[in-house]
Amino acid sequence: MTTIDLPDRFTGAVVEEFGPELTIKEVDLPEPGPNQALVKLLASGICHTDLHAAEGDWPVKPEPPFIPGHEGVGEVVALGPGEHEVGIGDLVGNVWLWSACGTCEFCRTGWETLCNEAEYGGYTVDGSFGQYMLVDTRYCARIPEGSDPLEVAPILCAGVTVYKGLRMTETRPGQFVVISGVGGLGHIAVQYAVAMGMRVIAVDVAEDKLSLAKKHGAEFTVNARDEDPAAAVEAYTKGGAHGVLVTAVHPQAFAQAIGMARKGGTIVFNGLPPGEFPAPIFEIVFKALTIRGSLVGTRQDLEEALDFYARGKIHPTVHECKLDDVNSVFEDMKQGKIDGRMAIRY
Amino acid sequence: MTTIDLPDRFTGAVVEEFGPELTIKEVDLPEPGPNQALVKLLASGICHTDLHAAEGDWPVKPEPPFIPGHEGVGEVVALGPGEHEVGIGDLVGNVWLWSACGTCEFCRTGWETLCNEAEYGGYTVDGSFGQYMLVDTRYCARIPEGSDPLEVAPILCAGVTVYKGLRMTETRPGQFVVISGVGGLGHIAVQYAVAMGMRVIAVDVAEDKLSLAKKHGAEFTVNARDEDPAAAVEAYTKGGAHGVLVTAVHPQAFAQAIGMARKGGTIVFNGLPPGEFPAPIFEIVFKALTIRGSLVGTRQDLEEALDFYARGKIHPTVHECKLDDVNSVFEDMKQGKIDGRMAIRY
Amino acid sequence: MTTIDLPDRFTGAVVEEFGPELTIKEVDLPEPGPNQALVKLLASGICHTDLHAAEGDWPVKPEPPFIPGHEGVGEVVALGPGEHEVGIGDLVGNVWLWSACGTCEFCRTGWETLCNEAEYGGYTVDGSFGQYMLVDTRYCARIPEGSDPLEVAPILCAGVTVYKGLRMTETRPGQFVVISGVGGLGHIAVQYAVAMGMRVIAVDVAEDKLSLAKKHGAEFTVNARDEDPAAAVEAYTKGGAHGVLVTAVHPQAFAQAIGMARKGGTIVFNGLPPGEFPAPIFEIVFKALTIRGSLVGTRQDLEEALDFYARGKIHPTVHECKLDDVNSVFEDMKQGKIDGRMAIRY
Amino acid sequence: MTTIDLPDRFTGAVVEEFGPELTIKEVDLPEPGPNQALVKLLASGICHTDLHAAEGDWPVKPEPPFIPGHEGVGEVVALGPGEHEVGIGDLVGNVWLWSACGTCEFCRTGWETLCNEAEYGGYTVDGSFGQYMLVDTRYCARIPEGSDPLEVAPILCAGVTVYKGLRMTETRPGQFVVISGVGGLGHIAVQYAVAMGMRVIAVDVAEDKLSLAKKHGAEFTVNARDEDPAAAVEAYTKGGAHGVLVTAVHPQAFAQAIGMARKGGTIVFNGLPPGEFPAPIFEIVFKALTIRGSLVGTRQDLEEALDFYARGKIHPTVHECKLDDVNSVFEDMKQGKIDGRMAIRY
Repeated sequence: MTTIDLPDRFTGAVVEEFGPELTIKEVDLPEPGPNQALVKLLASGICHTDLHAAEGDWPVKPEPPFIPGHEGVGEVVALGPGEHEVGIGDLVGNVWLWSACGTCEFCRTGWETLCNEAEYGGYTVDGSFGQYMLVDTRYCARIPEGSDPLEVAPILCAGVTVYKGLRMTETRPGQFVVISGVGGLGHIAVQYAVAMGMRVIAVDVAEDKLSLAKKHGAEFTVNARDEDPAAAVEAYTKGGAHGVLVTAVHPQAFAQAIGMARKGGTIVFNGLPPGEFPAPIFEIVFKALTIRGSLVGTRQDLEEALDFYARGKIHPTVHECKLDDVNSVFEDMKQGKIDGRMAIRY
Repeated sequence: MTTIDLPDRFTGAVVEEFGPELTIKEVDLPEPGPNQALVKLLASGICHTDLHAAEGDWPVKPEPPFIPGHEGVGEVVALGPGEHEVGIGDLVGNVWLWSACGTCEFCRTGWETLCNEAEYGGYTVDGSFGQYMLVDTRYCARIPEGSDPLEVAPILCAGVTVYKGLRMTETRPGQFVVISGVGGLGHIAVQYAVAMGMRVIAVDVAEDKLSLAKKHGAEFTVNARDEDPAAAVEAYTKGGAHGVLVTAVHPQAFAQAIGMARKGGTIVFNGLPPGEFPAPIFEIVFKALTIRGSLVGTRQDLEEALDFYARGKIHPTVHECKLDDVNSVFEDMKQGKIDGRMAIRY
Repeated sequence: MTTIDLPDRFTGAVVEEFGPELTIKEVDLPEPGPNQALVKLLASGICHTDLHAAEGDWPVKPEPPFIPGHEGVGEVVALGPGEHEVGIGDLVGNVWLWSACGTCEFCRTGWETLCNEAEYGGYTVDGSFGQYMLVDTRYCARIPEGSDPLEVAPILCAGVTVYKGLRMTETRPGQFVVISGVGGLGHIAVQYAVAMGMRVIAVDVAEDKLSLAKKHGAEFTVNARDEDPAAAVEAYTKGGAHGVLVTAVHPQAFAQAIGMARKGGTIVFNGLPPGEFPAPIFEIVFKALTIRGSLVGTRQDLEEALDFYARGKIHPTVHECKLDDVNSVFEDMKQGKIDGRMAIRY
Repeated sequence: MTTIDLPDRFTGAVVEEFGPELTIKEVDLPEPGPNQALVKLLASGICHTDLHAAEGDWPVKPEPPFIPGHEGVGEVVALGPGEHEVGIGDLVGNVWLWSACGTCEFCRTGWETLCNEAEYGGYTVDGSFGQYMLVDTRYCARIPEGSDPLEVAPILCAGVTVYKGLRMTETRPGQFVVISGVGGLGHIAVQYAVAMGMRVIAVDVAEDKLSLAKKHGAEFTVNARDEDPAAAVEAYTKGGAHGVLVTAVHPQAFAQAIGMARKGGTIVFNGLPPGEFPAPIFEIVFKALTIRGSLVGTRQDLEEALDFYARGKIHPTVHECKLDDVNSVFEDMKQGKIDGRMAIRY
């Protein structure tokens, strides 16, 4: 432990029992163990997953009490025993994939996101909705110099998620990709796709979101409220899009995605809505489609996603709030009122 | 045209109107055009697709009257004008992908099966349920020397379909693949998977089919009537199969396939049942699964599939019948009574 | 044949015997056969390969007399018998891969550039150094609407060559690629790499070429005359470039390419210099490098390369000349005096 | 530390200074640190790399005194502090990739063999030429139950090296692969290639080695002393082999490899001979060849290689010796007298 002056307790937003209401309270400052660092937070994004965590509505549940948050950016203020990849004063981030085992078949093959012994930030391990947090120094994000803590926060989850999702569509530079849904994930996806040389088509039901997509470089937009997106994409692309990234969570978005794909194309699901989606077998086989799920990204994906940000290619729309606002942000999130990403500044 | 003595008319099984009943009748002998050859048939497999063709129950329908059949093997007896890749006396086959345009994006990239201007054997072009047929000499199958016409016939559709399907699972030698359904397609799939070095698990509801799978080299079998195949495969493989090839057409086979797949695994649908399949979005995303449709194969896939056969790796179970039996074979097919493949000997 | 008024003879630049001197003379107008069109030329690029053709210094030689040229752009003025993919008045181009067999293992799998029965424009078939030429309507380039004939000409060979070469480096968007040599090929390669989202490093020995590379979006340049390019690239990229495209033809460029590559990286040779290159086995194995040759591109590669051009991403540096200038252009080419690409306007 | 009775010192073969002569002497028993286990050896293969280590003739050198050996098989007898993936009594192995950092771009992406901070067994860390050794419990091999320690030893280096090398050739089941050199690596490569469904051609200059290759399933063999291997392979395969694995270390083997490859094929160098190889640029480009280096394999490759062994697919030719024989084995190795693999039994 170093000589930086640290408090015994800090303020965090705690899920005491499942439900959308977090309790803002004082909690004990944890001490970093081997491979761990204590981080003083500067900012944290608020992700839809945090709401799922708080409500405990996913099949695999966290155990209250816990602190959500997995888009946290802060400064290392203490290191646990042993050697570390980071030093005091370094800017780091916590992420959904808080740690992994390092030895299983998935960790060995660049697929640590599938590790069965992974810990999840703000879910199985306390997260970034508080003044301090622990990170695993082998797995935490390294924040590029010169980053704005508030703006970079959404890259840590939304950014890496869509970046990896886009890669999983296997769309090559010069080919068409549809971004279905231009919300918190989608407006960042448009920017990554443009920076990756893809020809971007954005589909949403809100004109202001489609305008934002155009501003970020989408060459064609479709308002799915006004016209059939499959027909519009088919006509514009002469055969459909090579890749489709579904960031929208409405069931109809999944069926539309099939219709917008070119023969031989790939559709990636990037969100985790509950429920099932009626997959049309004949169409999938006849068009030789690939449908694929993609969840966050590895440390490598994250480093690459951050590099695009550091080079000025990605500008998330971020609205600043305070830790005390987290419950009202959740409320707005449930009502679909949030445009871009909310992020806490500490 | 050469000097081989050819009749003016020949006997064929004709779909005069949609329905399961074909009319055995005399029809005019066609004359081969440019890029075409006239073939005197020795054998033809009978595929489930022929029944779909006869009944006209797929979204895109053929136009009666026509002759079904796309697993035909025979000898070239006449050639159309111009140059050809085959000569009089060569053994050739017609296939589902009877011809393609040769210039579209799919034809240019090794995906001629997706060509929008393709012709389909026994569907948009008269097929092999008759004594003679035309083939496109650029697209017909080249039957390896020494082949038994009856035994090789099912390779032309069932064989290439499962061979390509297995490749699309991206299962590597030494990894686990599940063959779901050990019928006309599945019992051949087991043999290809074994020859490709995969560790094969067969799933069916009939003990005799599972025994056949074992005989062909499956190392583990699951009777889905007696136990939960997902649990059995999970336990045997310690995590699920890397690839799953669904040749069964029952809706529950599709849901089981998801459950049998390893994280990051690939499920390929090889059949064309009507209807939809309720795809569990959370599981697809959380396990990072890939679901993919695969339909027949290209000329290259076919040549490779035939090479495995020619090297003695594949022995389809074939039952001989006559052209006159085609209606009763369709009847048995509808009642699920057929074990292996029925093939007409001319 | 249509009613467009065509001459009996036209002016072309003919290789009468091997050597750098072409004869400008009147030759008979050819008549298009099946799958062929007669094209009235508007422009033609002059490629280094044309000089190789004229001098007959490659292992496989053309047969004089013949007309070189494989970056020709013109208008279809007559069609041979049969059906065609193009019509009278269409803008088309001839290319190095003038035609291929359409049925071999390479043609079947998207690798028609490797077809053993391919014909080569301006090499085995008369090319674009004349007022008229024949093209194969199944293989000719389709020039996008609105193209400047002179500017688009180099895309037909130089453009598609570097576009395919870049793809063969398997460099992903956001990764580093080195373009070694910023000449006729290299200055176009820089632009494609930028449009494909790569981080581009240009290496050359001439400052003006490095300035051009910067103008086209290279983020880092190295003058190999002044500093060790391997060390400079290693330092800038922290480990070496993921891909290296060698368009330079000097032997030392090949050795440098090995040194500039990151562990696990891929080096693509895009030119066809004679001779051998001393490959350091230990370094190749220890760094797990991939070294690969890439020659022109397929019709699909060409269509994609043209699409980048049509979207305004690629601006070849083209200097206009006349057919009569071809011998002096060859002279300049031999002396390395040409900057960008020379193209004939008819 | 457990209660197993351990000596203070043990007998090892030590490189005291560079040269082919090892000193058999008593050395101190090391104590396992965090992430380490102490292993009592049962067997160890002797690899050509051990000779390179002893002679210090590679560009990057080890530091004497050290104990070579990286194909060691033994039983865990003590564990260092902290948690471990293995337990006392487990059968484990040391390997060339003794450990890696776990966090760099290569470790993150399934390429830990390229890690710049890797430790190498019997090179930078004491190895298996002694009664005891340390392993890193995160990186050591897990020996399958029922393995014969002597027979499994060569899988730990020779086996995984050729298995990974074969994968890097990208040869698919049913395609042709040439194994060039049927020695310690090559005779195992033949077996892996057969088990992976490839059509195997073996090339060597010794008839007994070619006979061994046939016994292990090679379908065609070429004695390069008697005939031109490129011509023989070209004729047999109708165009060349899809993959070529070069395990031979003679310079001419590298040039022959180019000649034996099919257009578009891949040649993998699996050995580390010093010196350079004159690569024919025109042929590489014109045939679109890929040349690639491959060095040992990752933990995942190793687990897969061991699984093939455990399933009875691989039978290395192993000759038993004693630790005291190591210097005479080195002598035989230098004279090319060794057939198969020598392994020490403890």
